[in-house]
Amino acid sequence: MTTADADPQPSAGRRTDPGRRDRIIDVCLDVIADVGVAGTSHRRVAEAADVPLGSMTYHFSGMNELLHEAFTRFGTTVSDQFERRMATAADAAAAREAVVAIIAEDVFDTQRDLVLTHELYTLAARDPSFRDITNAWMARSRRALERHFDPTTARMLDALIEGLTIHRALDIEPHGREVVVDAVRRITGG
Amino acid sequence: MTTADADPQPSAGRRTDPGRRDRIIDVCLDVIADVGVAGTSHRRVAEAADVPLGSMTYHFSGMNELLHEAFTRFGTTVSDQFERRMATAADAAAAREAVVAIIAEDVFDTQRDLVLTHELYTLAARDPSFRDITNAWMARSRRALERHFDPTTARMLDALIEGLTIHRALDIEPHGREVVVDAVRRITGG
Repeated sequence: MTTADADPQPSAGRRTDPGRRDRIIDVCLDVIADVGVAGTSHRRVAEAADVPLGSMTYHFSGMNELLHEAFTRFGTTVSDQFERRMATAADAAAAREAVVAIIAEDVFDTQRDLVLTHELYTLAARDPSFRDITNAWMARSRRALERHFDPTTARMLDALIEGLTIHRALDIEPHGREVVVDAVRRITGG
Repeated sequence: MTTADADPQPSAGRRTDPGRRDRIIDVCLDVIADVGVAGTSHRRVAEAADVPLGSMTYHFSGMNELLHEAFTRFGTTVSDQFERRMATAADAAAAREAVVAIIAEDVFDTQRDLVLTHELYTLAARDPSFRDITNAWMARSRRALERHFDPTTARMLDALIEGLTIHRALDIEPHGREVVVDAVRRITGG
């Protein structure tokens, strides 16, 4: 252990715990999933992350910055999975199958993803300053789709994925996979 | 004025104000649009509706019943507009134009509708007991579309409307109408 690591200053924790800001962002998403954006406070996140309350104001200018960082990370994580799925498709037929799999299997496959997505949408509906996050998320999805489809088709597919996954998640009746296959075929002309 | 209307009993207000329950439901939607589901309480709605707090527990078994009634009314109001739009279409071409108008003009044409819809979706994402409302809303939209399209096409169109309207509302770049026209054409084969 170096002298720096054992820094006796009160502020030492920040230097010896370089992952703290990162961990606060992750824990913030857990808190949002649990109690919603409205119930998420500096105090609640600090307690859940087991950091002093002062860490919150040290690392973030306020709740808006923390929420921004948290939802940006969430969107990036979901987009990474989306991109991996599209990247593995070798041709147009495989790309159409990948889109079907994204709709029927990937999106909202956990209660956490379903809740966090809708918490973000509600926040962005209320406060346009969060729409850079939804904009970046849509842009990445479209870029991933454009590996295989023209930009117009990619935009339509992205909207179709959004609508079909929300309707599947918020319905109380089962939705068959064949409707998804058929819808993707109609949009892509495959 | 009859004796009944001038009922001197303390409970008379309920009988002389038959629209009170209705008004509370309307005001509840205003409160949700303003402060969100999480911030909506009996006390807040009673104050906004200018009724005694006791009216809330008299008319509703709890917040869940009130939220249920409020969002059911909201879904019904939006569905009514949707049905009127589809009912005026004389043929398949007019029906396709009506769907384009619903996407480009009707849905989320007010900030209130955008916020209330996403508040409902977030609530239904968290609590499946609210999915009877989203289920009934989707069922009515599909029935309205089935005036002009087969059930499979109606289901796809309903999802497409959902996805395109959300993406238009939560983006920071403009979305052209021609993509909507083209997407509706591809799904309906028109």
